[in-house]
Amino acid sequence: MSLKRGIIHLKNPPSILGFSAVAGDMEQSGPLSGKFDKVFKGDMDGEKSFEKAESKMQLCAAEKAIEKANLNPEDIEIAFAGDLLNQCIGTNYGLRELGIPFAGVYGACSTMAESIVISSVFVSSGQVERAIAVTSSHFCASERQFRFPLEYGGQRPPTAQWTATAAGAVVLGKGQSKIKIKSVGVGRIIDYKIKDMNNMGAAMAPAAVDTIVKFLEDTNTTPKDYDLILTGDLGQVGSSILSELMDMEGYPLEGRHSDCGMLLFDRKKQDVHAGGSGCGCSAAVLCADVLDRMSKGNPKKVLFIATGALMSPTSNQQGESIPGVAHLVLLEGE
Amino acid sequence: MSLKRGIIHLKNPPSILGFSAVAGDMEQSGPLSGKFDKVFKGDMDGEKSFEKAESKMQLCAAEKAIEKANLNPEDIEIAFAGDLLNQCIGTNYGLRELGIPFAGVYGACSTMAESIVISSVFVSSGQVERAIAVTSSHFCASERQFRFPLEYGGQRPPTAQWTATAAGAVVLGKGQSKIKIKSVGVGRIIDYKIKDMNNMGAAMAPAAVDTIVKFLEDTNTTPKDYDLILTGDLGQVGSSILSELMDMEGYPLEGRHSDCGMLLFDRKKQDVHAGGSGCGCSAAVLCADVLDRMSKGNPKKVLFIATGALMSPTSNQQGESIPGVAHLVLLEGE
Repeated sequence: MSLKRGIIHLKNPPSILGFSAVAGDMEQSGPLSGKFDKVFKGDMDGEKSFEKAESKMQLCAAEKAIEKANLNPEDIEIAFAGDLLNQCIGTNYGLRELGIPFAGVYGACSTMAESIVISSVFVSSGQVERAIAVTSSHFCASERQFRFPLEYGGQRPPTAQWTATAAGAVVLGKGQSKIKIKSVGVGRIIDYKIKDMNNMGAAMAPAAVDTIVKFLEDTNTTPKDYDLILTGDLGQVGSSILSELMDMEGYPLEGRHSDCGMLLFDRKKQDVHAGGSGCGCSAAVLCADVLDRMSKGNPKKVLFIATGALMSPTSNQQGESIPGVAHLVLLEGE
Repeated sequence: MSLKRGIIHLKNPPSILGFSAVAGDMEQSGPLSGKFDKVFKGDMDGEKSFEKAESKMQLCAAEKAIEKANLNPEDIEIAFAGDLLNQCIGTNYGLRELGIPFAGVYGACSTMAESIVISSVFVSSGQVERAIAVTSSHFCASERQFRFPLEYGGQRPPTAQWTATAAGAVVLGKGQSKIKIKSVGVGRIIDYKIKDMNNMGAAMAPAAVDTIVKFLEDTNTTPKDYDLILTGDLGQVGSSILSELMDMEGYPLEGRHSDCGMLLFDRKKQDVHAGGSGCGCSAAVLCADVLDRMSKGNPKKVLFIATGALMSPTSNQQGESIPGVAHLVLLEGE
């Protein structure tokens, strides 16, 4: 049993049976080029709106992950999924076709980790055989909802991050596979009173620290015990805050840390300011790159911590600060 | 084991350790008057916005449920909660103070059932001792987000429902109590192509039928085997569709059915058109009335099915229909 609330060491570690990432043109032009299962063309890929394009991406990621697991949608007992759009419409319309029992989650950019956490506990409990965790984000849909219509051409400050146009899905279940989920961690809502909607990294980094430190204390481990500590979407600003705060907590990251927001895009060549963000960012990096490398044997022990900023434009306009949350998944390869 | 996907018969049925409902003035003027743990005054109860008032209600419901379970927030390992507001800010800001590890869910008006379903599986798995399920809604915050600003004075058609200003919370855990959760069911996304945002009952009723029939088939039972089949927020229109569809499915409801949207308000005296709705509606009816009566011995066997409409104003403006989902909880009293 765990000593820390929210940390769960899984009794029957679920296997990752399949995973898939799909992305847009810009993500395909970045460092992970060629690693996506499908690349969507332009902002809409033939759909009539950004939102419909996002739904299509999320459905595609789910279908491909199920296919890569050699399963059919009928074999999946439950789906946990969500996205950034108001009322999670990327998910609701995306997964509508599949007919899989569906429970929506909202964790902002932490959704990939949150949906894997919940799926893992369901499978580990022995009460569900197989579950799927899915999420997505879309740059254009997100900009007009959270910031400005693209046509306005608003300037973005250097701390701003670029919402990924991408989706990812992971199928979990009993049975053998090269990667297992050993532990999961649910984070607390942490609020350091950041109010700048263009500096999500700073708002989310303290939540990541809170969850990581809780996990390290509970397991009596240090960052050196992991091959990779992978945060979701802190970007350049949030990553350096993470590093400083972890030093202060007595757990220096010792070169073990990478951030999905820094891996998805090439900040020198692509105009993404502080890096990538959005539910789809950590989902795509995890499913296009990290799980693929793990299934080939390296890295073996990965702490995946996706962070979410829990504000809305309304709360921001009402003068509220931006609370963060971070959920954790311990992945172990053979 | 269950034969139907999404139905889970819990190995270790969790106990309901505490529950609480809080509501606004209008709910207090209805049939459940006097049954709420706290009544909030006016639209804001001293807060500066409707949204902040909703957060305050949700925090209050959670704190009272924990208190009524003779516990402290530190005793709760995990919270599952959500609401109707964009990015679930009612929840994010409401539960921020509690420090409980938090996983956000989005199931629209099905949130109370969804968060109880997930909490139940976590507790039943033996990997978490205690969890809390929380939700809320607020008429004014909801109207201006989903429909029109109140100042506009838009006319509401007879099929429209009235979003409850209310919150509810349930603490689940191991140990003895008078009410246990025996089974849960996660619904599929069902879309009968209703597009009228003022007729949610019609959009959600088919989802309720899908989940209820799946459960009855799986358990080889009929409505007569339950003291109460309690749907969340179908209202008058959705309830009559439910009744007709259940007849067609060969499972006539036999007088066992009540709907939270019809119980929270008195449609003859209160101007709520087709009845109540919103996450807080089924939460308040469950926590103020049904669980209270169950703890006193009657009814004993209750199927609680909360339904959610998974659209957004954006999807509606883009011509999309309104998909529904319904999640189920089987409650049994001593």
